[in-house]
Amino acid sequence: MISIRVPTREVDLDTYRRRVFETIRRYRLVEIRDVIYVAVSGGKDSCAALALLKEYIEEYRIDAEVRAFHINLGFRTSAKIEEAVRTLAEALGVGIHVVYARDYLDIEAAARATGRPICSVCGAVKRYLMNKVPRELGATKVATGHHAYDFLTYYIKNLVGRNHLWNFKILPRVEGGGLLVTKIRPLIFARPEENEEYCRRRGLPVSAVCCEYGLCGAAHAEVYEMLAAARRRDPDFDLKLIGGVVDFNMKFGRAEVEQLHKCKICGEPASGEICAVCKLRAAVAKSLAKDSQSLREAGRRLYA
Amino acid sequence: MISIRVPTREVDLDTYRRRVFETIRRYRLVEIRDVIYVAVSGGKDSCAALALLKEYIEEYRIDAEVRAFHINLGFRTSAKIEEAVRTLAEALGVGIHVVYARDYLDIEAAARATGRPICSVCGAVKRYLMNKVPRELGATKVATGHHAYDFLTYYIKNLVGRNHLWNFKILPRVEGGGLLVTKIRPLIFARPEENEEYCRRRGLPVSAVCCEYGLCGAAHAEVYEMLAAARRRDPDFDLKLIGGVVDFNMKFGRAEVEQLHKCKICGEPASGEICAVCKLRAAVAKSLAKDSQSLREAGRRLYA
Repeated sequence: MISIRVPTREVDLDTYRRRVFETIRRYRLVEIRDVIYVAVSGGKDSCAALALLKEYIEEYRIDAEVRAFHINLGFRTSAKIEEAVRTLAEALGVGIHVVYARDYLDIEAAARATGRPICSVCGAVKRYLMNKVPRELGATKVATGHHAYDFLTYYIKNLVGRNHLWNFKILPRVEGGGLLVTKIRPLIFARPEENEEYCRRRGLPVSAVCCEYGLCGAAHAEVYEMLAAARRRDPDFDLKLIGGVVDFNMKFGRAEVEQLHKCKICGEPASGEICAVCKLRAAVAKSLAKDSQSLREAGRRLYA
Repeated sequence: MISIRVPTREVDLDTYRRRVFETIRRYRLVEIRDVIYVAVSGGKDSCAALALLKEYIEEYRIDAEVRAFHINLGFRTSAKIEEAVRTLAEALGVGIHVVYARDYLDIEAAARATGRPICSVCGAVKRYLMNKVPRELGATKVATGHHAYDFLTYYIKNLVGRNHLWNFKILPRVEGGGLLVTKIRPLIFARPEENEEYCRRRGLPVSAVCCEYGLCGAAHAEVYEMLAAARRRDPDFDLKLIGGVVDFNMKFGRAEVEQLHKCKICGEPASGEICAVCKLRAAVAKSLAKDSQSLREAGRRLYA
């Protein structure tokens, strides 16, 4: 995890909580009879999302349920993180469902087989599981802990990289349909340091790292520095900027961002004929087959 | 004028010139039989725009003409600036047309009468004259010296201020039609320090200030600092960002940004029934009438 270079200011938790609750209310993130699965990684952001959604439902006595959903990534530290997430769910009194990424794909093997960065493979599996598993469990919505800086980084990177269609998805609520579960982002107008302070003040057990690779967010430093520079002149510049992006998307965004197909192998949503995870699985299988053939050939030479 | 906080790097004038020429070529900023009026303020940016358009036309032997157009704002320093612009036009061997803002509106009186900031009144008059006068002189296009940082500042400010429609106009070429002359921005992918170095190296006479109020750009410091922060990690981040904005507008921009009317008083383009300048003129007239009435009443009391 990179250190956040945002200027350390006194965090006003009342304002923060009000802002998150207003986001939930205004964009109808919680509705009657909702079953919301919060994707909890063990870090401060998803922990805050889970706790605040729970608080909101209780405060307004809404007939809705919030549950934790955790993906064990199958790395060295994953068992410890899973344990922390189970403790958190128990402390908050919410149900928890753990899914093991290894049951679907060996992330490290897939990264080796394809030459893709491990974070990219991990992201693909997470997106896949975060839709498939909650849907099968009866979720009406999936919530994530993404905060304002996650979205602003994504926005700037996509603008620079000209992936404009992706930016239309920067919304507090992205409507599902068919095999896609509706996604909600209750912390879209919250800052990372606010989430951190909220968890600290409530004494919630959060882990500082999400995995031993420690690369999450490493590529975002320049955007964090940009925002820090702007906030020296206008402390609320970051929130105004994400507010402007969301407002733009509400007014000018495309309802249909991309045409989705059904993966020919697993039946999950896919942008092409085969979904990203099935493609990765195929690459691992091919690599294993090649390895065993090399092994057989080496054995043949040895005993020839 | 604010000091530009962009990190001082060696300016590569060959790259700069190639980039500007490529902008002119790619977006058809110069076409056969064009009569282009360049709005020259006397500063480095519009001076570079004028000189580079002239160079381009000569290098590619295009049957087109470039002329300087200067607005004398009617302030204390305006006569001196006008003189400098005339010297520049002569040095470059281009025709020049000077228009006196005072013939249309007393900017300072209008600012006093309406309570609006002087820069806002000045901007309204400039936009008015930069379309009306060149059109009447037979212009096919009007060029300005706006550079990448002008547009990025405008972009961020409009995003934050939620003036999304204005951002769709960030393009190298904004098509005219009816009473509106086509606008071209040859320096949209150029940096302010590049324009400055270009003028210095060519020995062109430029003035450091555009008026004695010295407020132009004062509100943009946070965006300049943001970009400077980002460029510490990626020196071309600024150009990538404006490239992304223009690319977005080319793909998703609205052809019709706003419905234009014809001003009921002067016949120029207006967003409402009366154009901005005629409204300002009315405010000045009303204020003068009030002053003279007070004067009459005071006189009556004195001799009563």
